[in-house]
Amino acid sequence: MAQEQPASLAALTEAFARLPGVGPKTAQRMAFHLLQHDRPAAEALGRSLLNAIERLRPCQKCNHFTEQPICPTCLDSERDPSQLCVVETPADLLVLEQTQTFSGRYFVLMGRLSPLDGLGPKEIHLERLLERVAEDDAIEEILIATNFTPEGEATAHAIETVLRGRGLVPPRRVTRIARGVPVGGELEYVDLGTIAQAVRDRRTMQASEGEPN
Amino acid sequence: MAQEQPASLAALTEAFARLPGVGPKTAQRMAFHLLQHDRPAAEALGRSLLNAIERLRPCQKCNHFTEQPICPTCLDSERDPSQLCVVETPADLLVLEQTQTFSGRYFVLMGRLSPLDGLGPKEIHLERLLERVAEDDAIEEILIATNFTPEGEATAHAIETVLRGRGLVPPRRVTRIARGVPVGGELEYVDLGTIAQAVRDRRTMQASEGEPN
Repeated sequence: MAQEQPASLAALTEAFARLPGVGPKTAQRMAFHLLQHDRPAAEALGRSLLNAIERLRPCQKCNHFTEQPICPTCLDSERDPSQLCVVETPADLLVLEQTQTFSGRYFVLMGRLSPLDGLGPKEIHLERLLERVAEDDAIEEILIATNFTPEGEATAHAIETVLRGRGLVPPRRVTRIARGVPVGGELEYVDLGTIAQAVRDRRTMQASEGEPN
Repeated sequence: MAQEQPASLAALTEAFARLPGVGPKTAQRMAFHLLQHDRPAAEALGRSLLNAIERLRPCQKCNHFTEQPICPTCLDSERDPSQLCVVETPADLLVLEQTQTFSGRYFVLMGRLSPLDGLGPKEIHLERLLERVAEDDAIEEILIATNFTPEGEATAHAIETVLRGRGLVPPRRVTRIARGVPVGGELEYVDLGTIAQAVRDRRTMQASEGEPN
C-alpha cells in the first residue's frame, strides 16, 4: 500500500543524501523545498554542479581547484615567493587568506595522513609537494599549517621528516603555525593540553609588541 | 591579497547556500567534498536536479509531485475512495503512508494558512480541494491531518468551516487526527498543553482494544 515515489523524485532525494552531513530526512526536505518553493535555485544548483565538475581541476602547482592549468594565486607575482604554506584542504587555505597574515604561496594536500582510512603519502600528494619545493629555489620557508588533530600533527611531522631526508631542509626552514590559547580564550575554559602547550611555547614579551619571535 | 575563488566554484557554493538550513560554511564544505571526494555524486545530483524540475508537476487530483498528469496513488483502484486525507506537505503524506494506517486518497495543500507570511487560501489551493470534494460523490470522510501548530490548527479550522459553508459537509464527515500523549511518552516529560488535551479527548476503554471510537 505504501506510496511509490516518482523515479525522478526518489533519485533527487538519494542524490542529496550523498552530501556530507545530510541524512534521508534532510535530503527529502531539501528536495521538497526546491520543488515547492524555489525551482530557480534547483536549476542554478544543478547547472553549477555540472559546470563545476567539468571546469575545476587541481592547480598544477598548488593543487587547489582552478579553471586554468595554474591558478591565479600561484601566478600572482605580488606574492612572496620565499614562503610556501602547506594546508590540508581548500577550506583551510581560504581561512588563512581571510586572516590576511600570509602573503606567500600555498600547497594543498587535499587530505591528511590517516593510515587507518587508507590515506597514505600518495593520497596527500607528498611527492608532488617535494617536487614543488625542489624545483623552486626561491622557497626559503615551508610553513606547515595542517590541523592540530592527531592526523594533522602526524602529517606535519611526516612532511618535515621527508623534507629533511631529501636534503630540501636545510638550507630551507620548516615552520609550524603556533599552538596556544585562542584569542579571546579564558584559561578556565580552555582544555588542559592547550594550556600546557601554551606554557611550553611561551615567548618573551617585547617592550612594545612587534613581530613574534 | 585575498584569494579570488574560481567563478564556477563560487557559483556552486552560492547555489548550495540557497538550500534550507545550509549556511555559507556548510555550502563550502559540500562543494569541496564533492569536488575532492565524490565527483560522481556531484554529477548525479546535478542531473537529478535538472531532471526533477523538468519532470515533476503537481498531480491534478492530489497536488503531490508526479511525472504523470494524475499520480499513481490517485489512480490506484485498491485505495478506499470514501476517504480523503488532507496534509500540509508531501513529507507529511509520506510519513502517513509509512504508518500504513490510512488507505484512502490524499490532498496535499503544499503549505499552511499563515497570513503574516502572505500564505492565504490561494497558496494552500483551497479552491482546488473544494472542487476535488464536490466532484467526487464517493468521498464520505475528509480527514484533516495538518500539523498541531497554530498555523496547522488554523488551516484545519478554515477547511472545516468552508466545507460546511459550501454544503459539502454534511452529508460527508470531517475528522481530525487525534491529539494526545505520544506513544512511548512519559507524562512527566510531556508538555502540559498536550496532557490537558489528552484528558479532554479521553476515550472509553473497550474490554479488548478494537477500533477507536
